[in-house]
Amino acid sequence: MAGEIEKALVVLSGGQDSTTCLYWAIDRFGLDAVSTITFDYGQRHRIELECAQRVAEFAGVENVILPIDTFAALGGDALTDPGIDVEQDVDADTGLPNTFVPGRNLVFLTFAAAYAWQRDIGHLVTGVAQTDYSGYPDCREGTITALQHSLRLGMESEITIHTPLMHLSKRETVELARDLDALPAMAYTHTCYNGKRPPCGVCPACELRAKGFAEAGIEDPLLAAQ
Amino acid sequence: MAGEIEKALVVLSGGQDSTTCLYWAIDRFGLDAVSTITFDYGQRHRIELECAQRVAEFAGVENVILPIDTFAALGGDALTDPGIDVEQDVDADTGLPNTFVPGRNLVFLTFAAAYAWQRDIGHLVTGVAQTDYSGYPDCREGTITALQHSLRLGMESEITIHTPLMHLSKRETVELARDLDALPAMAYTHTCYNGKRPPCGVCPACELRAKGFAEAGIEDPLLAAQ
Repeated sequence: MAGEIEKALVVLSGGQDSTTCLYWAIDRFGLDAVSTITFDYGQRHRIELECAQRVAEFAGVENVILPIDTFAALGGDALTDPGIDVEQDVDADTGLPNTFVPGRNLVFLTFAAAYAWQRDIGHLVTGVAQTDYSGYPDCREGTITALQHSLRLGMESEITIHTPLMHLSKRETVELARDLDALPAMAYTHTCYNGKRPPCGVCPACELRAKGFAEAGIEDPLLAAQ
Repeated sequence: MAGEIEKALVVLSGGQDSTTCLYWAIDRFGLDAVSTITFDYGQRHRIELECAQRVAEFAGVENVILPIDTFAALGGDALTDPGIDVEQDVDADTGLPNTFVPGRNLVFLTFAAAYAWQRDIGHLVTGVAQTDYSGYPDCREGTITALQHSLRLGMESEITIHTPLMHLSKRETVELARDLDALPAMAYTHTCYNGKRPPCGVCPACELRAKGFAEAGIEDPLLAAQ
């Protein structure tokens, strides 16, 4: 790859964090080197896919949507199963929230790496963070490092997974978005676990987002746009 | 899990190797503790799914088929894309055969681990082998070990991936099948890359299988059954 442009692929969910990562990638690799991938895994809130497309369009990068029908077939979690309500508390047996889809990020990043492999893209960017991780073990740094190792071995590649938000608080993530001029794009994002737009304001995801903007002293462009 | 039965899930493709692994798992964990999972990833040869079902039924274990529509969407490989012929030689650019689906085994094992996680199954069994690996880096022991590590971290589980064929030659795999009384089930398996039944006999998969049986001095029950 010597002398060639270094390309990056951002896993874009259409939420605040992955949108910040998109602007981080553009800043680091250049607009022409960046594209985004979004997974249609049967999420109940189809608005996420629409938001991802809008964010990518607003930023001026290509977005591809890849289907994954397997999680819905596996069933049993609140993000894909309309028969299960999102609960605030963790499950007494597993110690995990019922929005946990086992292995979801592992699968997303593996498919992203496969897509990247086919296109000589050497960098993946994902918005996972362990500071405020909501009980998701596949968002931790140790998991991502281990996954990068297995992807490199399994695909004989030198893929690098970047996690610019890994150690940032929500406040710091908002400040990073401001510094990267990513705030205008926030008007097109979606965070609410209940799929509401305007956001419900009471689910854990809405609360966490509001807290971050409040602590940074910045008005959330998503709310300002309503 | 102390005092509980240890359960195992075999990734069953319907081929010779995974069928041998199924009998290995039954021998090790007991018939009642074993179930199988097969992935419908859009393989051109639908007969594989039928063979997997028949092998599981013959062995007396449950088989579940999980869909994965993502590989077909990714495209570009000879196992899922009807527009691409299987080639004998490796690709000059990648050094890999054009039957290579990047990350295929990583995805299979990650979804198998998710399915196992939901059912308190602590053991996965897969028929990958690095002795005669056909250019597939995701069949190597180092890859599997790294993947197990990332699955354990990403799902907070103690999942163990067993690869009983990892260091066996094809001859030794046939001998293991004989020792495990797995030979009768071989009549229901499918190996041919060209999807033929009776097998084409000339593709790399057919040649490898024939060589193993010949070296072990055992007649292939699949051919005897024709």
